[in-house]
Amino acid sequence: MAETNAPETPVRFETHPERYVHWRLEFPAEHAGKVARLVMDVKEDRGMRPGYPLKLNSYDLGVDIELADAFQRIRFEHPDVRAVVVTSGKDRIFCSGANIYMLGSSTHAFKVNFCKFTNETRLYLEEMSAESGIPSLCALNGTGSGGGYELAIACDDIVLADDGSSAVSFPEAPLLAVLPGTGGLTRLVDKRKIRRDLADAFSTIAEGVRGKRSVEWGLVDEAPPKAKFDEVVKRRTEALLARSKRATTRPIALTPLEVKRSDQGAEYKYVSLALDPKARTATLTVRAPAGKEPQTPEELAKAGASAWAIQAFRELDDALLDLRFNRPSIGVIAVKTTGDAANVLAVDTMLTKHRDDGLVREVLLHMKRVLKRMDLTAKSFFALVEPGSCFAGSLLELALASDRVYMKDSEDEEVSIATSPVNASLFPMANGLSRLQTRFLKEPERVSRALEQGTMSTRDAVAAGLVTFAPDDIDWDDEIRIAFEERAAMSPDAMTGMEASLRFAGPETMETKIFGRLSAWQNWIFQRPNAVGERGALTLYGKPERPEFNWNRT
Amino acid sequence: MAETNAPETPVRFETHPERYVHWRLEFPAEHAGKVARLVMDVKEDRGMRPGYPLKLNSYDLGVDIELADAFQRIRFEHPDVRAVVVTSGKDRIFCSGANIYMLGSSTHAFKVNFCKFTNETRLYLEEMSAESGIPSLCALNGTGSGGGYELAIACDDIVLADDGSSAVSFPEAPLLAVLPGTGGLTRLVDKRKIRRDLADAFSTIAEGVRGKRSVEWGLVDEAPPKAKFDEVVKRRTEALLARSKRATTRPIALTPLEVKRSDQGAEYKYVSLALDPKARTATLTVRAPAGKEPQTPEELAKAGASAWAIQAFRELDDALLDLRFNRPSIGVIAVKTTGDAANVLAVDTMLTKHRDDGLVREVLLHMKRVLKRMDLTAKSFFALVEPGSCFAGSLLELALASDRVYMKDSEDEEVSIATSPVNASLFPMANGLSRLQTRFLKEPERVSRALEQGTMSTRDAVAAGLVTFAPDDIDWDDEIRIAFEERAAMSPDAMTGMEASLRFAGPETMETKIFGRLSAWQNWIFQRPNAVGERGALTLYGKPERPEFNWNRT
Repeated sequence: MAETNAPETPVRFETHPERYVHWRLEFPAEHAGKVARLVMDVKEDRGMRPGYPLKLNSYDLGVDIELADAFQRIRFEHPDVRAVVVTSGKDRIFCSGANIYMLGSSTHAFKVNFCKFTNETRLYLEEMSAESGIPSLCALNGTGSGGGYELAIACDDIVLADDGSSAVSFPEAPLLAVLPGTGGLTRLVDKRKIRRDLADAFSTIAEGVRGKRSVEWGLVDEAPPKAKFDEVVKRRTEALLARSKRATTRPIALTPLEVKRSDQGAEYKYVSLALDPKARTATLTVRAPAGKEPQTPEELAKAGASAWAIQAFRELDDALLDLRFNRPSIGVIAVKTTGDAANVLAVDTMLTKHRDDGLVREVLLHMKRVLKRMDLTAKSFFALVEPGSCFAGSLLELALASDRVYMKDSEDEEVSIATSPVNASLFPMANGLSRLQTRFLKEPERVSRALEQGTMSTRDAVAAGLVTFAPDDIDWDDEIRIAFEERAAMSPDAMTGMEASLRFAGPETMETKIFGRLSAWQNWIFQRPNAVGERGALTLYGKPERPEFNWNRT
Repeated sequence: MAETNAPETPVRFETHPERYVHWRLEFPAEHAGKVARLVMDVKEDRGMRPGYPLKLNSYDLGVDIELADAFQRIRFEHPDVRAVVVTSGKDRIFCSGANIYMLGSSTHAFKVNFCKFTNETRLYLEEMSAESGIPSLCALNGTGSGGGYELAIACDDIVLADDGSSAVSFPEAPLLAVLPGTGGLTRLVDKRKIRRDLADAFSTIAEGVRGKRSVEWGLVDEAPPKAKFDEVVKRRTEALLARSKRATTRPIALTPLEVKRSDQGAEYKYVSLALDPKARTATLTVRAPAGKEPQTPEELAKAGASAWAIQAFRELDDALLDLRFNRPSIGVIAVKTTGDAANVLAVDTMLTKHRDDGLVREVLLHMKRVLKRMDLTAKSFFALVEPGSCFAGSLLELALASDRVYMKDSEDEEVSIATSPVNASLFPMANGLSRLQTRFLKEPERVSRALEQGTMSTRDAVAAGLVTFAPDDIDWDDEIRIAFEERAAMSPDAMTGMEASLRFAGPETMETKIFGRLSAWQNWIFQRPNAVGERGALTLYGKPERPEFNWNRT
């Protein structure tokens, strides 16, 4: 499995329900349009890459991209939806998880990035329930194994058909020598709070657990006989609808992004990604709105996906995913902003004022998710605050999400940054704290002080603790050049491990556990010969040979 | 770096201040015996294995074993000590961390186990401060780099000489392509709460940070000029003494363990370790006290290290370390107990009644640490509760620390387990919760119910949620045999990652972050070609060649 510098065919993340290959997004009449039914019906021969038939509703990244798209559409395009039901279009199988042959033929880096994206998507499902009041039910009309069951436990409620054969299972460890690493192990003990000894037994029983025992162990919430399955799903879906707290919201269409892509990067309307592959660096620039943006939720709904708060962050999300999947050798990103900070702050003011409006709330949640995507991107981010930049409010979060902030201490030109009310609590990180709170764990009083200060000069920003280094006009160019050269010369692996350890101080949540603990262990295992070596279990899956293990325990 | 099945020379963990090679344990007259001064003065040519001179106060496992021993002696043998000062016996260098050539020539498994032991030892230093009221100060009379600075930040207070050359530094990432993985990164942002951007900068500046800036960044607490160094250390040590809350306690001598070792295992007085290398399993048996144990703290002090509560757990600790370091291919441990449960419960009663006594407190803390050592041992533990076993109170923790509990559902013979008050809160896990609380996160009311129930039959224990499987007389032998065979046949790496993910549900602490997040990332990096490959930075350290990296970010 050679590690190539970039995938042969770039991965693209935009899609549309009309183009879905593997999922159907339905709105059954029986629930009067209030339920979005996501039916997984994977086409075996339509994998993202050739070489692995997607049998038994197994998935690859292409399948998950559609699922992530569907969640976005439900939030923005389908305001009537108040609950989600995830189920399978195939008989006797719900989903058999990530495709093993796809995993076995992927580079280490792809496996890691694939799992990260899948994890994010599942967390989005949980966020949709917790923050948008759209709970979810998994209707296991057949076996859910591996990533299939991991998808189920990302839902609020699980119904498993008790038909003598349908089971839930985590066969990863016993059959493949890897982990149920897409949140699986963490959700067992931390979300469903299953006893550790039962979780241990369950995670080593390749054939899984069925019927009554699956309820007793807490693996599913109800396991009715096949004949009563639809009735129970309907009853429990109605119960979810009854407790749904979705706010009234106006629909907007998520129109396609317009982007010019090249080897040098990508040009969106509000975002530019400019690569310097030789230096292994890139510059990611986000532009402020050019003029007046919507002043009310009504205007926002009218502007739709072309509103800056939506479009700029959709573009940023796309650029971050492009960096992760298609630009593996880029190690350090200069984060820049340009434009009029007042225009950004005006958007922030509108969003803060109308934060309880359904659409505004979705816009804010989307911005939050994109910022979290940045926190979790394994690249070094150095924010560069220069004359003309506009790290204000929602764009200040880009600096706070960066590993370092360089701000020019200029004699001649004005350089400033600004806080706005959105920095207080509207964009929490995975640890549940705002970026300002996480930054100032030692001196929490600095959070409110920074929020009160608003716009700050370089000196003020340094004093406020918002700046890492503030070179003057004379030193700026050299210092920045050296900082990027030095960073880009360091081991990419050490940087990834270091950033993952430094970015998430403070409290831990299920989410940080998934990315920090479970993913780190999975990444470790994804390199071990016992899994991916020539005689490893993942490599030999489906072949007549049996894996050979080095029995040493580490 | 071939992974061998066992080290050529077994590692032994017992030592004594009289035999220390690398540390001096002093009780300076200036503090009237109230301060233990630990002076690191590593002998270059006395490494644990040949092949790496321990230059510049760098350390290997042998150095850390002495440090761990010193902490135990301070607790049990030196009741007057109310503060600890850690310093160096060498000029201009405090400690340069783990020896690079030792790391470079170690197997992956040894590196992982070495870091784990070092991590545990540093946590013991912090526990000594938090739980025993013996705070610590690090007197950096020279540079503390890598593991040297990691040792410093395990102390409560750090004084660095501002002499123009002494610095603190984490050169691991920039020079070696690995992490400051012995708690370093985690303690920066979670204990000292250093801003993430400063922590990022610090962790990539190989030469480190000196003088005033080290104080400004929060890396040390004071950086006086060389001429005032001793005075400041003295003043701050007196301040630590003033806030010390160490309880009055009676000294007891930690006499050598008596143990017969062989290829088949180890026989201690209260503990047996019996190996079955072909099956890759072992049986770890802990015996109850044979008769009457001390009834009062006075009697306990008189009995000293031969008291069951001390000796059995010292033996268990030694057996666990033996398993970790010297028995790498053993994967599954049967955990058994034998003897009269009443005798165990009598000890528990005494310990609970006198828990505020200084010596009793130290005994309980020691038991807690040993049980945590078990939680962190990368082997599968299956507790077997049979006729004649005595999983009661403090020994019930062995079952609760196990991955599964098998309890015989016998028609003919009596089988029981028992809770005692010690199970309530005296042995918290790394997550801060008791093992019962962690087990019953979903149904917290079960904790008090189990504590009230006391002694339970198999049926009662199953109903109480304390048992994973309860085979009857007919099935017992086969079920146990199959369970062990199946477990021992699974990938050791997958089991390690799975157990690390399932054992620590609930809240996270600095401690769980160190072992779960930082260690997992370090273990990942410890396998990456960029660190340990032929052209990796760790491999080539000190050689004329420059490392070559695969630049892909993962």
